Amino acid sequence: MVPCGTSVKLEMESGSISDQGCLWLCRLVLVAKLKISGFMKKAWKIGADDPRKVVHGIKVGLALALVSVFYYTRPLYNGVGGTAMWAIMTVVVVFEFTVGGSLYKGLNRAIATLSAGALAVGIHWLASKSGETAEHIILGSAVFLLSSAATFSRFIPTVRIQFDYGITIFILTFSLVALSGYRVDELFELAERRLSTIAIGVSICLLACILVCPVWAGEELHLLITRNMEKLADSLVVCVDKYLKEGGIDGDKEASCQNLQGYKCVLNSKASEDSLANLARWEPAHGRFRFRYPWRQYQKVSAAMRYCAYCIETLDGCINSETQAPESIKKHISDVCVKLSLECSKVLKELASSIKSMKKSSRINYLVGEMNAAVEELLDAFRSLQQADSVPLFESLPLVTVASLLIEISARTDRVVDAVEDLASLACFEPADSEKPELSKPPTSSLSSIVSQGDDAMKALQQV
Amino acid sequence: MVPCGTSVKLEMESGSISDQGCLWLCRLVLVAKLKISGFMKKAWKIGADDPRKVVHGIKVGLALALVSVFYYTRPLYNGVGGTAMWAIMTVVVVFEFTVGGSLYKGLNRAIATLSAGALAVGIHWLASKSGETAEHIILGSAVFLLSSAATFSRFIPTVRIQFDYGITIFILTFSLVALSGYRVDELFELAERRLSTIAIGVSICLLACILVCPVWAGEELHLLITRNMEKLADSLVVCVDKYLKEGGIDGDKEASCQNLQGYKCVLNSKASEDSLANLARWEPAHGRFRFRYPWRQYQKVSAAMRYCAYCIETLDGCINSETQAPESIKKHISDVCVKLSLECSKVLKELASSIKSMKKSSRINYLVGEMNAAVEELLDAFRSLQQADSVPLFESLPLVTVASLLIEISARTDRVVDAVEDLASLACFEPADSEKPELSKPPTSSLSSIVSQGDDAMKALQQV
Repeated sequence: MVPCGTSVKLEMESGSISDQGCLWLCRLVLVAKLKISGFMKKAWKIGADDPRKVVHGIKVGLALALVSVFYYTRPLYNGVGGTAMWAIMTVVVVFEFTVGGSLYKGLNRAIATLSAGALAVGIHWLASKSGETAEHIILGSAVFLLSSAATFSRFIPTVRIQFDYGITIFILTFSLVALSGYRVDELFELAERRLSTIAIGVSICLLACILVCPVWAGEELHLLITRNMEKLADSLVVCVDKYLKEGGIDGDKEASCQNLQGYKCVLNSKASEDSLANLARWEPAHGRFRFRYPWRQYQKVSAAMRYCAYCIETLDGCINSETQAPESIKKHISDVCVKLSLECSKVLKELASSIKSMKKSSRINYLVGEMNAAVEELLDAFRSLQQADSVPLFESLPLVTVASLLIEISARTDRVVDAVEDLASLACFEPADSEKPELSKPPTSSLSSIVSQGDDAMKALQQV
Repeated sequence: MVPCGTSVKLEMESGSISDQGCLWLCRLVLVAKLKISGFMKKAWKIGADDPRKVVHGIKVGLALALVSVFYYTRPLYNGVGGTAMWAIMTVVVVFEFTVGGSLYKGLNRAIATLSAGALAVGIHWLASKSGETAEHIILGSAVFLLSSAATFSRFIPTVRIQFDYGITIFILTFSLVALSGYRVDELFELAERRLSTIAIGVSICLLACILVCPVWAGEELHLLITRNMEKLADSLVVCVDKYLKEGGIDGDKEASCQNLQGYKCVLNSKASEDSLANLARWEPAHGRFRFRYPWRQYQKVSAAMRYCAYCIETLDGCINSETQAPESIKKHISDVCVKLSLECSKVLKELASSIKSMKKSSRINYLVGEMNAAVEELLDAFRSLQQADSVPLFESLPLVTVASLLIEISARTDRVVDAVEDLASLACFEPADSEKPELSKPPTSSLSSIVSQGDDAMKALQQV
């Protein structure tokens, strides 16, 4: 491209207007080609990363094709009449990526249409008993008052989360029926037709959504939380390693860079978690999740994880600062810091696998004990440091900060443990496979196990 | 309620079934009454906090009432025919709280209807040239392919952010027209009617939205960012005070508790900022904001603020830990810490007022200099500490952490300064009123001004 561009440029200076036009067109085509190919690449990547998104597109197409059968098959066509339009509209508007999303919209649409239709017919009947002018006034003010109140109610959080779409449909149906100018007996016929077509649309939608490769919002939330918890555990270890290990991290640089960014996923996924949790509440029992599964508790677990992530983010920022602690102190502290980060990360990984398998963990108390022991060890290291006479406090500022933040992170990990325990009891996780006898030991007393644990940790670290 | 409840309870033990039924009904009514009054209180509070939300409800009602004029005024009624339904639908669906939201939906709806309608008529015309069976196959497969592709395209972030609603309408219109079974000449008539009603609906919407108490997404974003920046500044000062000042914070406890929580607003407002920034791009010039105002830069400013907030959150957590530093060191360090937090908060407040007034600040370089001087002072305090022989490192862990985090916060405040400077140049902020001569002095040299600044700061602090 570059040589072509320069040659074209040279021509331009002496070229005629038609040449310039040609050049302009040539550039336009090139830019368009680049833009389109970039767009296609992006689209391809999205499809390759999650083929369910492609399947979703095909499902919507199929559902619409199925609805079109109602148009081409004559007996059905006459049955649903001109209102078959509503079936198409229902499919297009209600079909969402997750089953929860489709159920939320489908049920909202059905309930809102029914209630608004009934109310409108009632008011219409009342109005028709009065004179023509009074009728218009009654209907007009009913539309004005109800639509104002319903629109305002969308600002109330509890209403918005569960019924936002329903309120739109309520206002729409009420206005359409109230302002239609039909007689009441005509209205009944219209309502019947509209309801039957909406029912057809919603059922086609839900069937396609649930039977063909269903995507459950609940399961997505479950996976998102466990994946984020693992990412958090990884990024903590990599973050501490980056600072304390000489020569940076061993092994694949790019992979560890990606691991380091893991906590950012936790920081940024609040919106998607909230929306998944809201949609999951509409879903029936599926897979391992019963109806009325405590999805709200997942939001609490993720909030606790976010508190951890804030601290890791700060840690990452502090670590990037230039001042380095003197080697003597670094040596003294850094092993214990690495150990503490590993213990925290083990606790988080155990929690993740406990949620993943939906079983209470038999090892979690033991691991939390180990983590607390590592905190004590770190504090002891500081206590012993100060017995040495001259501690260069100024130079050791960053290292002290890292240690302090790690202690804070371990305290926040404890909060994640509590949140997951609440989840385990609310969601009736299966009890642990077998209660191992060594778990009843107070963890601080098993010094030998701490040491061996530490060795395991170092091995695990080298594999990171 | 309690005495009534207990007397009823006593009766229940010896009561008949009808009594129990009565009791049950009584309870139901009571619970319903409580729920409804709770709901009404919540709604009242939302309306009182932001009366524009009530006004929005009234605006929607008025727009619908205006549309109903098209039904009752005969000449107009005949003009738009049975498709007047589309005008109601457009008003209900397009009318959003912010002008940007209504414009986004209105333009998306109009463009999608036009393009999908044209495409569908074209394909319809092509299909009608073939036989009847071929026609059905061509139309069916066109609906399938286009709706699948369009649905998939909603997963591409750039498309979703700008055209999500438009794609829904595109699929809807295309399917309706392609599957309608009308002849091509009938279709033109239908399209003309539908377009004119949608145009009526969109114009009524936009007129009501822009002329009656408009809520501009851009202005909301502008206010949200400046408000959050002030909250961040306040919470930093209160947070440090809480720890370092003996006997906690002076003055109104509740107010300072609220100030302390300010950083949480910054942490939680990402979703609303993103949506406001996306909607603001659809708005024309309004107030002090021109068309193509750099709204994206606000998101960058807010990201920089969030980095600050992560650090303040960690600081708040660390401060709540139990270990307290020995008084001797605390005295040595805490004044400098309080000073640094005040300097950071001054920088943030200056930035907030600069954005608010849309003027470049004449004092910002001076204030940043002061902040950096305070950082140096804090580091000096540490340097001088270590010359004293015995520093109880273990006991001073929390204080050292606070100091270290404050230094990190000042570094992150610097990033906010950079982001706001970018905003100032992109948005062409007015230059500062007058370049004061003392600003050119290197800030570290003006020791007397630092001291007087410190006094001012202490006064300001007592007023918090």
